[in-house]
Amino acid sequence: GADNDLYINQAVVFIEDAIKYRSINHRVDSKSLWLYRWYYSRICQWILGLTITVILTLAFIETPSSLTVTSDIRYRLPAWDPPCGLTESIELLCFLVFMIDVSVKSYLIGWEEFRKTKWLMAYILTLIVSLADWIVSLSFFCTENVRIRRILRPFFLLQNSSMMKKTLKSINSTLPEMASVVLLLAVHLSLFTMFAMLLFARTKDGQQDKEWVGYFRNLPDSLTSLLVLLTTANNPDVMIPAYSKNRAYSVFFILFTVLGNLFLMNLLTAIIYNQFRGYLLKSVQSSLFRRRLGIRAAFEVLSPLKETPANAQELYVSVGDLFHVLQKVEMDSRCKQAIMRSLKTCSCDQLSAAQFQKLFEELDKDAIKQHPASPEYQSRFMRKMQFAFGHPYFGYLGNVVALANIVSICVVLVMDADKQPSERDDFFLGAINCFFILYYLLEMLLKILAMGLKRYLSYPSNRFDGLLTGILLVLEIATFAAYGFPHPGWRPELMGLLSLWDMVRLVNMLIVFRFLRIIPNMKFMALVVTTLLDLVKNLRAFAGILVVVFYAFAITGIILFKGAVVPMGNIRQNYLGWILSRFAACVGWVGVTVEQISQKRLWLYTVCVMYLLSFNLICRWAKIYFVAWWLISSVIWVNLFVALLLENFIHKWDRRCHREPLSDIEYQRTVELMFRDVLEEPTEEELMERLHQHPHLHLCR
Amino acid sequence: GADNDLYINQAVVFIEDAIKYRSINHRVDSKSLWLYRWYYSRICQWILGLTITVILTLAFIETPSSLTVTSDIRYRLPAWDPPCGLTESIELLCFLVFMIDVSVKSYLIGWEEFRKTKWLMAYILTLIVSLADWIVSLSFFCTENVRIRRILRPFFLLQNSSMMKKTLKSINSTLPEMASVVLLLAVHLSLFTMFAMLLFARTKDGQQDKEWVGYFRNLPDSLTSLLVLLTTANNPDVMIPAYSKNRAYSVFFILFTVLGNLFLMNLLTAIIYNQFRGYLLKSVQSSLFRRRLGIRAAFEVLSPLKETPANAQELYVSVGDLFHVLQKVEMDSRCKQAIMRSLKTCSCDQLSAAQFQKLFEELDKDAIKQHPASPEYQSRFMRKMQFAFGHPYFGYLGNVVALANIVSICVVLVMDADKQPSERDDFFLGAINCFFILYYLLEMLLKILAMGLKRYLSYPSNRFDGLLTGILLVLEIATFAAYGFPHPGWRPELMGLLSLWDMVRLVNMLIVFRFLRIIPNMKFMALVVTTLLDLVKNLRAFAGILVVVFYAFAITGIILFKGAVVPMGNIRQNYLGWILSRFAACVGWVGVTVEQISQKRLWLYTVCVMYLLSFNLICRWAKIYFVAWWLISSVIWVNLFVALLLENFIHKWDRRCHREPLSDIEYQRTVELMFRDVLEEPTEEELMERLHQHPHLHLCR
Repeated sequence: GADNDLYINQAVVFIEDAIKYRSINHRVDSKSLWLYRWYYSRICQWILGLTITVILTLAFIETPSSLTVTSDIRYRLPAWDPPCGLTESIELLCFLVFMIDVSVKSYLIGWEEFRKTKWLMAYILTLIVSLADWIVSLSFFCTENVRIRRILRPFFLLQNSSMMKKTLKSINSTLPEMASVVLLLAVHLSLFTMFAMLLFARTKDGQQDKEWVGYFRNLPDSLTSLLVLLTTANNPDVMIPAYSKNRAYSVFFILFTVLGNLFLMNLLTAIIYNQFRGYLLKSVQSSLFRRRLGIRAAFEVLSPLKETPANAQELYVSVGDLFHVLQKVEMDSRCKQAIMRSLKTCSCDQLSAAQFQKLFEELDKDAIKQHPASPEYQSRFMRKMQFAFGHPYFGYLGNVVALANIVSICVVLVMDADKQPSERDDFFLGAINCFFILYYLLEMLLKILAMGLKRYLSYPSNRFDGLLTGILLVLEIATFAAYGFPHPGWRPELMGLLSLWDMVRLVNMLIVFRFLRIIPNMKFMALVVTTLLDLVKNLRAFAGILVVVFYAFAITGIILFKGAVVPMGNIRQNYLGWILSRFAACVGWVGVTVEQISQKRLWLYTVCVMYLLSFNLICRWAKIYFVAWWLISSVIWVNLFVALLLENFIHKWDRRCHREPLSDIEYQRTVELMFRDVLEEPTEEELMERLHQHPHLHLCR
Repeated sequence: GADNDLYINQAVVFIEDAIKYRSINHRVDSKSLWLYRWYYSRICQWILGLTITVILTLAFIETPSSLTVTSDIRYRLPAWDPPCGLTESIELLCFLVFMIDVSVKSYLIGWEEFRKTKWLMAYILTLIVSLADWIVSLSFFCTENVRIRRILRPFFLLQNSSMMKKTLKSINSTLPEMASVVLLLAVHLSLFTMFAMLLFARTKDGQQDKEWVGYFRNLPDSLTSLLVLLTTANNPDVMIPAYSKNRAYSVFFILFTVLGNLFLMNLLTAIIYNQFRGYLLKSVQSSLFRRRLGIRAAFEVLSPLKETPANAQELYVSVGDLFHVLQKVEMDSRCKQAIMRSLKTCSCDQLSAAQFQKLFEELDKDAIKQHPASPEYQSRFMRKMQFAFGHPYFGYLGNVVALANIVSICVVLVMDADKQPSERDDFFLGAINCFFILYYLLEMLLKILAMGLKRYLSYPSNRFDGLLTGILLVLEIATFAAYGFPHPGWRPELMGLLSLWDMVRLVNMLIVFRFLRIIPNMKFMALVVTTLLDLVKNLRAFAGILVVVFYAFAITGIILFKGAVVPMGNIRQNYLGWILSRFAACVGWVGVTVEQISQKRLWLYTVCVMYLLSFNLICRWAKIYFVAWWLISSVIWVNLFVALLLENFIHKWDRRCHREPLSDIEYQRTVELMFRDVLEEPTEEELMERLHQHPHLHLCR
């Protein structure tokens, strides 16, 4: 009846929750379940994702955007200025989607849970503030300067990903320890600053105090000099005047650098690694708990359907009901088939809780991918061909040929290095590339012959190879179609989009890129590359948080430094103009993103620019801004990255020692699987206690 | 009889071997034992250490030394040139000591062991080569340029420390893994170089190819640009021309930096950490084995003295014999007393092997240091005083006063920052310092009153405090004696060695230094500082190896770059002269040592100088030299350091969580103790098997 259907639907949703590691604390009546499944359907989540992307992308076309081809403010054309109301109406649409999102989410979890969820409340608050700012913006006809809602935008990205929220929580728990080390750094810095000011004081002899003039003129100067020394950006420079006077002064700088850079900075790495290791494991453990809880909840709602004697201690679920449920559940088809199969082989017609859990352990397993078999040829000649070209040695031969191609390109590059473009003869390179590309084509065809198309395509390295060979072939044919066959002194005029020289360069770059196919053949390289790939997968949450921080910093930068950089007209070789162009590159929105790696240098330049321009107010803000940027992007984020890499690599390395990887089986990739050996299974009591705390589900027992 | 004495002596030596973690594979006849104890006596080892120090120090006074006050070749006076034969005769003396050392060592271990010991053979070879070079040197009357023996000198340091040899072995075992990553880096570098040369090729429009002109003119240039980019030294500069042309070019540089710097470099850290972790543990394990083996050997040689029935299975040692042995053994008096004490409390008169081993476990224990008790005063007033000034709050008050002093100095510094030295009034600073120093003196006396002198001195923080207070007091009295009491407008002339201003600066620096007494009061700081102290203790072997590498590099640098730097006369503001003075700082012997931290920059400057001067031959050598230097000092050594720090810190941190440290108990400090929880005790069979393999000791059983 209706009750039965409700229970089945509840079980379906709980199992889906378990698969996606979602919390099961949501409403469980029929209509809410329908809304819940609709909300988490692929299309709805896709629309939400698109909305977030759109609202984040808006910054690239909004007014103070600097998204032009060149970064040099002396040459660049004014960026496109969208009319007032265009980006604003897109924004309003996005806000509407977010409002629907937040109301559905709040309704689904219910009032009790809503009160406990700070993220949802922050979401609503952000939406209210954004809307208010939007109204202000429109009422000023887009002429107001400060737009708070832009800084708030990355929050929408943050709140939508449970992994990112978890990671943020981990980072948050590490903050007290990090704060201690940062405090220690501050103490270190201030004590050494005082020492420096006493050591490099102004003397009566004007010739002697170069150090004082250059770096330790007053307290802010000294602090800045030593802080920059901590980033090693001004490393030998800052000590050269004192060192020239007396070598013994270097002891001060060495002590400062060794203590600050070698000890304290690395201590930060150690602390972050140590703290973070535990928290990552903990978060994975809680994911496992969510999964087991979802499965158990499904079992509990299904069990009353199976009529058992009232006094029976154990509950059971009928296999038929489970079949019903499984057919409705949306999940990976491989897993579903595996579960169905083991359900069929199970001869019993009812399942206990333990059997039920065991059935779903399939979800935790690695996907084992079997490559399709090679075709079986009848003719003996074909079988010999198959043996020859399916043999690994044929692959090695291909690598050797690719290497030869690389070497030949290298030789041509070295020979042509100092030639004028007009003297250059593209014949040789064209001819050898033509030969090599033919070989690549032949290799691909022979491999397909030996392995069959399906097996050929099932290897990622072959797909990579084949794709590049195809592109190379197309390019080569296009070249010959446009410029004819190569001959000595072959130097045709430009035809179409690309000149012959550009075509040849493009082909060469692709050939260099294709050379990466050797990676899987080298054991250590393959290990490194799989570690890196793992890392990239595990790093998505980090990357998301980094994007959030970037976005906020870039928008803050735009607001802070608007108008601080003025183009200097035509003064080309002017030093100031040169520095300004760099500063422009750093302040501009994409510039900040691009030059993240060079924050040390950037900061230095900023300080430099600041002194040149004497913008007092901006100077102070810029210092704080760049110090914060350095701390977050260079110190904390890089250390987090190192911690994650250490964790990943050491796990991988240990596992490699334990078992030799089979070439036909894909590696396990997710954080969950990495920690599987150390995870603890939740006990029955813990699960049942949590189930009884469910705000909407009221179990009979 | 004589046999008994021999056995007793053997046992004494074996126990001493166990204490010092020495191998027991040496001759065991009476005369050899005497020689062995003489060789390892404090005086002999001290002479050997002194000889090594002397031969290493020679480089500071030998001919191409640049040990002058200033590092600037434009101003510095010619260094003292010792007459030919002076340093050479000191060297000969050192060689004689080394020859005695090597012959005694070789004799003691015997021919069998000698053949297996590669270190000893290398020692002999080094001595032969050094002597030959010395003879050549003298026959040329010290005018020859290349002195191979100087590069070989650090070997004497290396071979004398077993810890350093062990560490070197660990590093050596990590080399294959490191080489793989370095190879990967090389592949990364070369592929990106080819990409760069294709991407930033020369164009027909001269205005457009700034990137090509500046950084990618030919293969060596491109390789250099990207290698320097890997050190981040030329970070934004190298991409600015291309980035100005089109922002999209930055993708190339970002990819290169992210892959190279973020992934591969950190992968090196991970690999070194992972590999090194195991090897450190292994080396500590082998130390433990040596200790247990020494004790067991002592037991075995003592056991025949105790006459037991021939058919008895177990061997025993009489307590009286052990007393004899212990009286002769040279060891830490605390340990000796503890062993004697437990031997007396043991009621039995003979010891089994297990009991014997257990007795010596005292050696593995931490030194638990009890502070002496405070004096007990009769008068009630004195007891109240004692309570008040012995209370931690009195210490905190002292910290607050010290902070107030620091703040006052800081305020004066900020106020005086821009004043001319002649305008400066030292009255205020003199007056407040006088007041604060009086308070420090009072604090010290009251604390001594409360705690008693012995208890006061037993705390390191009090010793630090008291010493600095004493020095401050002496300085202050000296100031008043020379310049009278401070009064407004107090600006006396220079009297004696230091001016009043210098005295005040010195006092201030000491006050800043004294402020470090707050460290033990802050929990996290105390943890960090104890970790750092541990690290310094564990790092001695590393530091030794670093000194060896430094020395070799410095001497090689002197040989390679002799005459490459010419003083430019009086051209003061000349750019070339400026660069040259830096280069002088880097090539000079102390210069290389001093500027180790800045190798990135240094290298950059070198390349720069090389292009300016066009010394083709030197240029090539300099590149190889500095790349090797960068790899060893920056990449490998820093990573090893990080690995050790991570290891130390994580162990410490874990232990802190397990048990709260008691304030009256000193921490365990050595590598051996750090790993105690994870070490495995060697089994009886392993020990006996090794004993039977002893080349000189022939056990009856």
